[in-house]
Amino acid sequence: MRQLNSQKLRVASFAISIDGYGAGPNQSLENPLGINGTELHKWFFPTQTFQKEHGDGEGTTGIDNDFAKKGFENIGAWILGRNMFAPSRGPWQDDNWKGWWGDNPPYHTPVFVLTNYKRIPIVMEGGTTFYFVTEGIQAALESAFDAAEGKDVRVGGGVNVIRQYLKEKLIDEMHLVISPTLLGSGENLFANIDLRSLGYLCTEQVRSDNATHLKIEKSN
Amino acid sequence: MRQLNSQKLRVASFAISIDGYGAGPNQSLENPLGINGTELHKWFFPTQTFQKEHGDGEGTTGIDNDFAKKGFENIGAWILGRNMFAPSRGPWQDDNWKGWWGDNPPYHTPVFVLTNYKRIPIVMEGGTTFYFVTEGIQAALESAFDAAEGKDVRVGGGVNVIRQYLKEKLIDEMHLVISPTLLGSGENLFANIDLRSLGYLCTEQVRSDNATHLKIEKSN
Repeated sequence: MRQLNSQKLRVASFAISIDGYGAGPNQSLENPLGINGTELHKWFFPTQTFQKEHGDGEGTTGIDNDFAKKGFENIGAWILGRNMFAPSRGPWQDDNWKGWWGDNPPYHTPVFVLTNYKRIPIVMEGGTTFYFVTEGIQAALESAFDAAEGKDVRVGGGVNVIRQYLKEKLIDEMHLVISPTLLGSGENLFANIDLRSLGYLCTEQVRSDNATHLKIEKSN
Repeated sequence: MRQLNSQKLRVASFAISIDGYGAGPNQSLENPLGINGTELHKWFFPTQTFQKEHGDGEGTTGIDNDFAKKGFENIGAWILGRNMFAPSRGPWQDDNWKGWWGDNPPYHTPVFVLTNYKRIPIVMEGGTTFYFVTEGIQAALESAFDAAEGKDVRVGGGVNVIRQYLKEKLIDEMHLVISPTLLGSGENLFANIDLRSLGYLCTEQVRSDNATHLKIEKSN
């Protein structure tokens, strides 16, 4: 792994429900976050950080925005699961699909998309290029650290991808947000992962009116 | 069920970890809350409500204490699982065991202990009497509502007992406390229970410096 000492693999602004779900069930084109999944992100949508990219440029400041903003700082590359990039499964059928985000996605860095199916890179506006990695999470991480040129790498999700990196103790720092909702089913971040035994600790807790922000760090 | 309209079955001050565990693994005489289980209750121990029963009578006031105090208000009877009452398993071997709490337990009401093994009631100081119920959760609840004489019934735990009542949609109101720790393993409150489909909603969220307090209510 060509991770420089100063480089971290980070998860940020990752919202879960009270019962531990990071996405609702039945993800689809209509419900990219799964059924009721938008309830996880009510803390995020009003923030200035979100509104600058996707809204009218205004938006709230304060605790929620501070965390949202910090999640984009010093990030040199992203890693996403296939399902974060596209609603489709299996071989790529539609080369016109370039993600959910329009011509200028909110990443502005190289983005490594984990998939089982090869596809040529897509150069977008604003500095985002999507690379498709078929050699697994270690290969994606190595490419991302290289591409980040000394900066950190952020894993955007989904739950399944974050779980894979956690199980290998590759994530250095995780900012979780507990939103006050019960999803009941979907993709659970914690099921059958013993984060404590893996060496993860909660090192910070900050509460806003909308959510509970937690910092999880690897102790070794 | 002889539940009066005004009577509720409540869970209160029930603390869980970020990853959903309401007790650590390997409960024993030395670790009644399971390994690292005391970390769940750091918000509770300093409160005036706890200190009045178990400490020097002083203690903190504020959000945490307000919730802790409310959990004891209008309670006419308690239900506990066998493991909340004793570290032993199987047939009762030691009739001298009268719970963890000394001669004057903090309940001050009838307490119905769910067990598979009959035992005669134990009258304690301060109004607490332990009754041992071998006919299951419905029978215990009926007896508790009767004994509560119009007041509410509180399920003290453990996780397994609360889960049984949740699955039957018998719990009306649940005050959960998320403590900022990862237990990694133990007894998970949410695993394989779809609280949303059962009709439960998060209706209130209040955050203190130590924990996140959530109110969960049955919507129907």
